[in-house]
Amino acid sequence: MPEAATAPAARATIGDSEFDRDTALTRRAPGVYAIALSAGWTIISAVNGGYLLAVLGRALADALPHADPFTISAHYLTASQPGPAVVRTDVVRTGRTLSTGQASLFQYDDEGREVERIRVLASYGDLDTLPDDVRTTARPPAIPPLEDCFGPEDGPAPVDGSSAITDRLMLKLDPSTLGWALGQPSGKGEMRAWFGLKDGRDPDPLSLLLAVDALPPTAFEIGLKGWVPTVELTVHVRCRPAPGPLRVSITTRNLAGGFLEEDAEVWDSADRLVAQSRQLARVRLG
Amino acid sequence: MPEAATAPAARATIGDSEFDRDTALTRRAPGVYAIALSAGWTIISAVNGGYLLAVLGRALADALPHADPFTISAHYLTASQPGPAVVRTDVVRTGRTLSTGQASLFQYDDEGREVERIRVLASYGDLDTLPDDVRTTARPPAIPPLEDCFGPEDGPAPVDGSSAITDRLMLKLDPSTLGWALGQPSGKGEMRAWFGLKDGRDPDPLSLLLAVDALPPTAFEIGLKGWVPTVELTVHVRCRPAPGPLRVSITTRNLAGGFLEEDAEVWDSADRLVAQSRQLARVRLG
Repeated sequence: MPEAATAPAARATIGDSEFDRDTALTRRAPGVYAIALSAGWTIISAVNGGYLLAVLGRALADALPHADPFTISAHYLTASQPGPAVVRTDVVRTGRTLSTGQASLFQYDDEGREVERIRVLASYGDLDTLPDDVRTTARPPAIPPLEDCFGPEDGPAPVDGSSAITDRLMLKLDPSTLGWALGQPSGKGEMRAWFGLKDGRDPDPLSLLLAVDALPPTAFEIGLKGWVPTVELTVHVRCRPAPGPLRVSITTRNLAGGFLEEDAEVWDSADRLVAQSRQLARVRLG
Repeated sequence: MPEAATAPAARATIGDSEFDRDTALTRRAPGVYAIALSAGWTIISAVNGGYLLAVLGRALADALPHADPFTISAHYLTASQPGPAVVRTDVVRTGRTLSTGQASLFQYDDEGREVERIRVLASYGDLDTLPDDVRTTARPPAIPPLEDCFGPEDGPAPVDGSSAITDRLMLKLDPSTLGWALGQPSGKGEMRAWFGLKDGRDPDPLSLLLAVDALPPTAFEIGLKGWVPTVELTVHVRCRPAPGPLRVSITTRNLAGGFLEEDAEVWDSADRLVAQSRQLARVRLG
């Protein structure tokens, strides 16, 4: 086969990828980090909550003696914007196998005052030291092979507003959770997709924080429209993911009183349940 | 029917009950509360994590302009003991419908220094202002009627160590999740029970924080023994519970690497899914 006129771009790697560049922070002082939040991870014109969690997660990985988030909870206070931001971290406790830390992301208002966007509480450990004992009874989601699933590039843009994040993700939705994009929501609070980063970077514990919040809202399949802002998101990272695409399965079972929960499971190519999350989100009814 | 020689004790009420007395705090200064942690809510000699969460939850209900926890996450740092404790709260943000706060519980070491036991991040609202729109698709657990379930008082004490909490709870376990107490664990990570407070106090949003962590560990039914300490616990309170007993159903599906998750659902007498929680806990393997 003749060589292409221009060599294809090398596949991105963990540490050298869009995701790594856009979540990289500069340490200004102990516990103080600066970042310019990228405009590249917006969904319906809002900076994606999972991207923001990964930014905070990366700061805590630097601030704590342990590198991997085990359990991380974020409360989303005000809407973040692309542009300058500061992350401040506090070490709460350091232990032999677990350390706990807190982090806040701030931006600036028109008067230059700091406004807190997100506050996070998290416990970190070392995933590589966990014993191999795996007794998971949960099973991977029933999702068709990747080649039988569909991404935003396979159809017209179904939602108004900028969704730059779709340019950075390999996202292929299960056709049975795609009805909303065709004006025929299933009525079931489910969303399933194959997930990866478009530049080919393999998953790692920090990109799992993005993966749990990167799918369209289950609310769309329930027939609700509009933004479904996250109030709080807790992620358990249980295993370092194997290389290759992830499968993400999200379920909502308790839409009530103007709120809903989204439970996400993330499965890697080795059929491990590598992350579980639950978020509480607000819905606009009617 | 002749009158009893002594009148039966009046049934406790929300505000006047063991639970209220044992979670009551004294405000020493803005954001500073004192409490003597009760020895009455221990399980396997450890102060129950849900009782501790309720203590912190009550402090935040006082500190914040909104009274009801909507989503509350706790990281358990060091083991609490009955006795003097201080809770310090910080208001993170106040909004029209939601406010966010942080709280820490401290006790004192032998040199009188403060040691942080638990740190909490929570968002509060007003459950009574939520719209009536209920589209919950989850269904209540399949649990036999209360009279066909069994509590600790119905058999010999199956676990060593003081479990004073059992004197304060009405806890009736589903027989199909009781095998562990008879030396025949089912092997399934499930635990179900009817739950109430023994003095008859009806449930409320704060007692839901206790309810999600008051059952025996699912690990017992998986055949594991010993303490299963909670690393982190997040509770969503979705509805003010109706009076009467609650049904609590807990599931573990991801026991792996020395950790497990416990997902709890709490259903009230009106068949509402009033609370959902997930905790990450450590297990001792083999």
